[in-house]
Parts: sequence; C-alpha cells; structure tokens
Amino acid sequence: MTEKTLPSVTIEIIPSFHDADPMNVVWHGNYSRYFERAREALFRAFEYGYAEMAASGYLYPIVNLEIKYRRPAKVETPILVTATLKEFENRVVVDYTLKDKATGTRLTTGRTVQLPVLAETGEAQLVAPKILFDKLGVTYPW
Amino acid sequence: MTEKTLPSVTIEIIPSFHDADPMNVVWHGNYSRYFERAREALFRAFEYGYAEMAASGYLYPIVNLEIKYRRPAKVETPILVTATLKEFENRVVVDYTLKDKATGTRLTTGRTVQLPVLAETGEAQLVAPKILFDKLGVTYPW
Amino acid sequence: MTEKTLPSVTIEIIPSFHDADPMNVVWHGNYSRYFERAREALFRAFEYGYAEMAASGYLYPIVNLEIKYRRPAKVETPILVTATLKEFENRVVVDYTLKDKATGTRLTTGRTVQLPVLAETGEAQLVAPKILFDKLGVTYPW
Amino acid sequence: MTEKTLPSVTIEIIPSFHDADPMNVVWHGNYSRYFERAREALFRAFEYGYAEMAASGYLYPIVNLEIKYRRPAKVETPILVTATLKEFENRVVVDYTLKDKATGTRLTTGRTVQLPVLAETGEAQLVAPKILFDKLGVTYPW
Repeated sequence: MTEKTLPSVTIEIIPSFHDADPMNVVWHGNYSRYFERAREALFRAFEYGYAEMAASGYLYPIVNLEIKYRRPAKVETPILVTATLKEFENRVVVDYTLKDKATGTRLTTGRTVQLPVLAETGEAQLVAPKILFDKLGVTYPW
Repeated sequence: MTEKTLPSVTIEIIPSFHDADPMNVVWHGNYSRYFERAREALFRAFEYGYAEMAASGYLYPIVNLEIKYRRPAKVETPILVTATLKEFENRVVVDYTLKDKATGTRLTTGRTVQLPVLAETGEAQLVAPKILFDKLGVTYPW
Repeated sequence: MTEKTLPSVTIEIIPSFHDADPMNVVWHGNYSRYFERAREALFRAFEYGYAEMAASGYLYPIVNLEIKYRRPAKVETPILVTATLKEFENRVVVDYTLKDKATGTRLTTGRTVQLPVLAETGEAQLVAPKILFDKLGVTYPW
Repeated sequence: MTEKTLPSVTIEIIPSFHDADPMNVVWHGNYSRYFERAREALFRAFEYGYAEMAASGYLYPIVNLEIKYRRPAKVETPILVTATLKEFENRVVVDYTLKDKATGTRLTTGRTVQLPVLAETGEAQLVAPKILFDKLGVTYPW
C-alpha cells in the first residue's frame, strides 16, 4: 500500500533489580513493560502519543501479544529495545527486538497487535482512522 | 469519637515467583500490592468498594505510605495480610500486618493514609463524607 | 504417548486497582501474572512447586508466551483462571483460559512454553526429566 | 563524621501507560520502582552497583520505606527523580524527590533505609563495611 519506510525507534533500558526474578534474570512478564516503553517512544516519534490519541477520538487496545525468549536480560546490563511498525492500515502491528547493548546479541523478540477502536462507542474499526495515515505521512486510500 | 470496633480483614496470599527478586524473597515494593489487596477486601467488607465509592462521588487517594520490613516473605510460603481501619473521621488510616501463615511470625507492617476527595472537583475534604460514616455504622457527628 | 488425563487447575482472582490501567481495565501485561498464579497452582497440584523443582535439579524457564485478548477483565469483578497442562514430554506447554466468574464469558486465552533445563549446567533438555513423568503418574518411556 | 558532600543523582523518567492506574495517574506503589531506578543510578555513580556489592560480600536490604504523595505524576509527562545519600555510616539512608520536569513542581518525596548485611551469614552489621566508606571516598573511622 505504501513505499514509505515505516518508523522504527530504539530505546536503551538498564534493567532494575525489581525487574528480575529469583533466577537473577528479568522476569518473563516484564518484557511487556519494556516493549510498551519502546512502543510509546515509537508513537511519540510520529507525534501520536496518548494525549494525541485521546484528542483524535481513537484508542488502540492490544488484542494479541507474543514473546519469544532466547537469552535472558540481566540486572544493570544495558539493553536496546527496538519497536518497529510493521502494519497500520487495519490492525496496528509492532515488532520488538531486544538486544544486549554491549555485544549486540539478540535476547528477545516479540509482537503486539492493536485494534483501532472509536473511543466514544468502543466500536472496533476494520480500517485504521485517517489520522493514523496522516501522522505517518501516508495518503489515506479510502 | 466512637465506641464501635473498627473493621479488620485478613486475607491469605501465596507469594508468586513474579513477586520475588534476585534475593529470592518478595521485592520490597510489592508489599504495597499485598496491602492494597487487603485494603480492598477491608472496604468490600463494609460495602464500599470502588464501584460504591465512584457512585458516592468520592475518591480516597493515598497520600502517605510507610512500610517496615522485619523478615522476608518467600515464594509459595503462604502469608496472612491483615488490614485494619484505624481512623476514618478525617483522613482514612489503615494499618497492615503481614504474618507467616504457618508460624504466625510477623514479617512486615505498614500504614497507608488516604484523603477523601470530591471526585467532581478534585477538592480534598477535611472531614470524611457522611457516606463513609454510614457504611461503617457510625453516627455522622456534623 | 499417554491415555492419562493431564491436570487442569482453576483459581479465582479478584483484579486489584493496581492491576488496571487508565482505560479502567486490567493492563494487558498483567495477565502474565494471573497466568503464573494459575500455573503455580497447577504445578503444586501434582506436587512439583518451586521447592520440589529446585530439589529435582531442573528449572523450567519460559521460552514463549502468547496472549489473545478478547474482552477486558475489570477491577473487583471476579475472574476464573484455568491453567491446563497440554504437553510435557519435551517442552512443557500450558494453556490458559480466563473467564468472568459471574457470566462464564471467556475474556482472555493464552499459552506458555517452558523448556526443561538442568540447573547445574544450564543445559536445555530435549526430553523432560523422569521426575516430571513421575509427578504426573506417567510411565517414563526412555 | 565527614565534611565530604554526599552524592546525589537525578534521572529522567517518562511514566508509561502501565505505570498508571484507573485515576489516570501513576499508581502509588509504582513510585518505589522509580525510587529504585534513581537509587541504582546513585550507587553506580560511586561504582557500587549490584555486581560490586556482590563482590564485596555485602547486601543492603531495605528495612524501611516511606513515601509522601503531594501531586500525581502523569503518563508521558517527564519527571525528574533525585536520589540523595543522607546517611551511610550505619544504616544507608536515601532521600528521594520527584519533580515535574517542565515546571519543577515537587510531586512526591520519599525515603528508604537499608541495613548492611554480611551476605555469607545474613548477619546485620551495626557499622557499614569499610568498602562503602572507600567507595564514597570517606576515611574509615574504625
């Protein structure tokens, strides 16, 4: 639908003590927090943070989450979390890659799927709203 | 102000793996979640859960939290968390005691202070609203 | 490999205020905590909790997590979380279903995949250890 | 005991959606995570992170936490969290101040108290170990 490169943002996180479990690695459920921090930076990069979303009248609840754990992230060992927009025309699909900052080793990958919902009615939208195309600089095809 | 015994509720919690930190004990910040679960059970006991609060037009945000850690709670070792209402006429003060279920050993104590706030205006109230006295079965003195 | 019915355990959870997000529903990442609580109850049901695991010399880190969100769980609205063992001979696969307690409506489903790892060496095992078969009452085929 | 200025470190945090509660502000229990991130940065500033602590043979478990909530922190509104070492000779006392980055308004303050513990025996120490004085560049008086 578009030749435009979709946005991708990388943030650095230093895992905290409270992120880790008794195995001394980041607890598997906490990666969804890291992913969210990267996704929020991604949306801010095209000026569609929560305030702009609310103003636009749309919400984007997550309907699917998948995480693959390859190697563990560790306390006070900096990581890079990259969130990349993969689809947006209907569902919003974001892919995540989490790497060790020092070595570049890939530790974890994941994906979230979000559905555009009209805030006022709670009605799911089959096609993403025009505002999302505008924010991404892509011509609205409908 | 009242001779009536103030309510106290005890819940059982089995600490989860995700509650624990690399020291293999419950992470210190997670006790505020345990306290909240006990406080919620306490408020439900006098039929003033979140839905009833919202319907009453008042919120009770926490303005102070204190926790003293004596001995650690451990994964899959059941604990009893008791929340006791200590004051309610102005600020809502709840005390917490966390004990090992098997031995009765006291592990942690804490206190939260909440301020009644009129939901519509966000205005803090110096005196608790009548609804709270009613829920507690105490005559409203004003 | 076995005719024996695999174990399934259901626990009740009352979502707390701290589990919910600004949309007033349980934050999507918190379901992994609910799933873990149900999975822990499942493993305790066949007497293979964390202490027994540690004693057996094996760990079972999660290598894959998937969650599908259909309808939101809400604060102080009781839910039932069922964890069912689906596979154990190689990888440990657990499926989760989260239902509204009052109506039985299915809200969320999920799956975790765990890999048996020899604690001493950290080496992943292609076949589950005999202890897991024993705990499940299934004849070890190797 | 010393004329040396004790260290203080400020970090910036952008509160995430998952940090907030249904009141659309950071949930009160999550400030302990923000405090920990600032305290970790503080300890790293004098080269006494978790790895160095472990190597030194001492742990510093938290024995007391207090938080005062004045004004709420909000999602995607940057805050500055300052951790300042106040005492270290016996107990380690750290004070926290959380401010709105844009306006400088103070939102939350807090304090943690940690006790030096000999890792091998778990024995609490009445006097901080020499290594902590060394790291802080203060002459060990004993």
